[in-house]
Amino acid sequence: MKITATKENLLFGVSAVQKAVSNKSTLPILTCIKLEVQNEKLYFSATDLEIGIQCHVPVEVVTEGMTIVPAKYFSEIVRKLPDSLITLELVNEHELIIEYEKSQLNLKTFSPDDFPQLPDVEAGVKLEISAAELKQMINQIVFACSMDERRPLFTGVLCEIENKQLKMVSTDTHRLALKQGKLKKGAKKPLSFIIPGKILSELSRLIQNEEDICYLSISENLATFLLDNILVVCRLLEGQFPNYRQVIPTQYNSKIKANTKLLSEAVERISLFSLNSDTNTVQIKVEDNLMIIFSQSELGQGYEQIFIENEGEPVEIAFNYRYLLDVFKVLATDFFTIEFTGSLSPGIIRPLENDDFLYLILPVRS
Amino acid sequence: MKITATKENLLFGVSAVQKAVSNKSTLPILTCIKLEVQNEKLYFSATDLEIGIQCHVPVEVVTEGMTIVPAKYFSEIVRKLPDSLITLELVNEHELIIEYEKSQLNLKTFSPDDFPQLPDVEAGVKLEISAAELKQMINQIVFACSMDERRPLFTGVLCEIENKQLKMVSTDTHRLALKQGKLKKGAKKPLSFIIPGKILSELSRLIQNEEDICYLSISENLATFLLDNILVVCRLLEGQFPNYRQVIPTQYNSKIKANTKLLSEAVERISLFSLNSDTNTVQIKVEDNLMIIFSQSELGQGYEQIFIENEGEPVEIAFNYRYLLDVFKVLATDFFTIEFTGSLSPGIIRPLENDDFLYLILPVRS
Repeated sequence: MKITATKENLLFGVSAVQKAVSNKSTLPILTCIKLEVQNEKLYFSATDLEIGIQCHVPVEVVTEGMTIVPAKYFSEIVRKLPDSLITLELVNEHELIIEYEKSQLNLKTFSPDDFPQLPDVEAGVKLEISAAELKQMINQIVFACSMDERRPLFTGVLCEIENKQLKMVSTDTHRLALKQGKLKKGAKKPLSFIIPGKILSELSRLIQNEEDICYLSISENLATFLLDNILVVCRLLEGQFPNYRQVIPTQYNSKIKANTKLLSEAVERISLFSLNSDTNTVQIKVEDNLMIIFSQSELGQGYEQIFIENEGEPVEIAFNYRYLLDVFKVLATDFFTIEFTGSLSPGIIRPLENDDFLYLILPVRS
Repeated sequence: MKITATKENLLFGVSAVQKAVSNKSTLPILTCIKLEVQNEKLYFSATDLEIGIQCHVPVEVVTEGMTIVPAKYFSEIVRKLPDSLITLELVNEHELIIEYEKSQLNLKTFSPDDFPQLPDVEAGVKLEISAAELKQMINQIVFACSMDERRPLFTGVLCEIENKQLKMVSTDTHRLALKQGKLKKGAKKPLSFIIPGKILSELSRLIQNEEDICYLSISENLATFLLDNILVVCRLLEGQFPNYRQVIPTQYNSKIKANTKLLSEAVERISLFSLNSDTNTVQIKVEDNLMIIFSQSELGQGYEQIFIENEGEPVEIAFNYRYLLDVFKVLATDFFTIEFTGSLSPGIIRPLENDDFLYLILPVRS
């Protein structure tokens, strides 16, 4: 294997596959990147067995071949290379020579035999979606996934497809986010599957060019995402996602309309008085177009008054402030609404004049 | 105590004194900030008993007074306040009411009786220096201080004053930095003292307006720095700084001139092969206007060749790469020189055409 490449292309490659490199050293080969030269391209692959990422960049090929390099050191080297043409050459089967200008680095490599294959892309349902739309959907949903690996199902995002409609749902059982979007190419039969949330986060990070199309392929066990020159493969989560439709109230007793930025800043300040408590609670009262946000602890207490618009009954309710701040960050509209059906029932947050997104948040008993 | 202030002024105050707030909770009062209203000004003070910082900002005073607030929470609150006028009022002796717009926070406070006095500024030698010059001097010197508190003297910077000349010297016994500057107002008698390096770092951070003058007062035990509306007080380190003049060679066998950026980048890359070794060594060879930088480890090996200008004998020497990278960051000239007197003798690095700064670096036996 011998090629000449730009620093920029090498950097693109190591950055793209980086999140699929394992941090754990129990299986050292998973902390490596596979480099493979084929068809005038250099392919980078990495996998931690949960996610696999492959990408390719154009290079000038002298001879084809492949090798395995330690991800951490190879990435560090690439990052520090000068902006000139770089030659990579495999010699003696286990040494990669990196040459540039008048200098040369000589990195020990591993045998390609030990590197796990990325799962083969099986025949599956083929879908297409705009990368920009997919990125926005992921960002509005993924934060509500659970981080608790003991209940793996809730670390995933439920995807439901009907014709060209895609619904994504995530919940950690305290709150739930639901987002609807449009596919460019849909499925003939309704389809539903669960993708690990952290893989969607990584996919969102990889979407740099929002004009791209993302090609999905969904089989029994695997999802693959093809994005220009990047391929992401992951296993689907198995199990029955809870019936989220049941928990979303269909009517409300009170509804408010508030300014996203004002309310977000107010909750941030008041939350300082909840920092040391277990429940992270802020209390909310609504009456006469005024919202009062209140909290107290051994540090002191605080209240904020904000003008809002309200209809229906007065409200008295308490929420975990983190769950409020999380959704304010992704609402993407200047105003939003909350619907209430009582102090022990969930609140439903929606961006104003946009019914593609819904966020359900359970109250805290105070 | 009751005042009205802008968010900007409150933020300036809490940021300025922040580094004097203790992180340790063994003496909780040291994790606080004293607020004192006097003469149309709000004074912020904090001390961890090693350093004391006081600053003042203009406010609209209703009544004078003082109180003690927990630094962490008060700073967080100030940071999150809206950009409007803020009223601070002490009520019931132990509650600070923070009012803005239609909202109110109520922070519990502590008794001012327990807060330690900043050391009184004793009569001492008065000096003046341009803040810009002081900042530059500190930044070129302070990184070479030792971090090892078991040998406190080396955590300090020796300051020697003769007439209007100020010399600063720091060393961790492996390398030594020496910087000369001019005072605006000097001392009649020669004077020397040792200031903790981390206090100089903080002083450098506090110098925002480079047109300021810094007024120093040096007494038997204390140094104070007055910078516009900020006062920094610290204890001097006691002991005899080693005779640095002895260790600086007065002649050399070889001398090179190199490009700072090129050499710095080359050392950074080669250092990747030293990351896992104890000595952090890179080897250097100089001959015929070429410098070779070399390193190897179980990862592999690398060499870089850089064009330089050299005079005198060929050189073969090894250095700790961290000590090289440290000085490259502060050289502030495009080119620099290194003087050598043999592979076991220190190298002397100087910025080109600027004899105010000198950096001595001991070689590593390889």
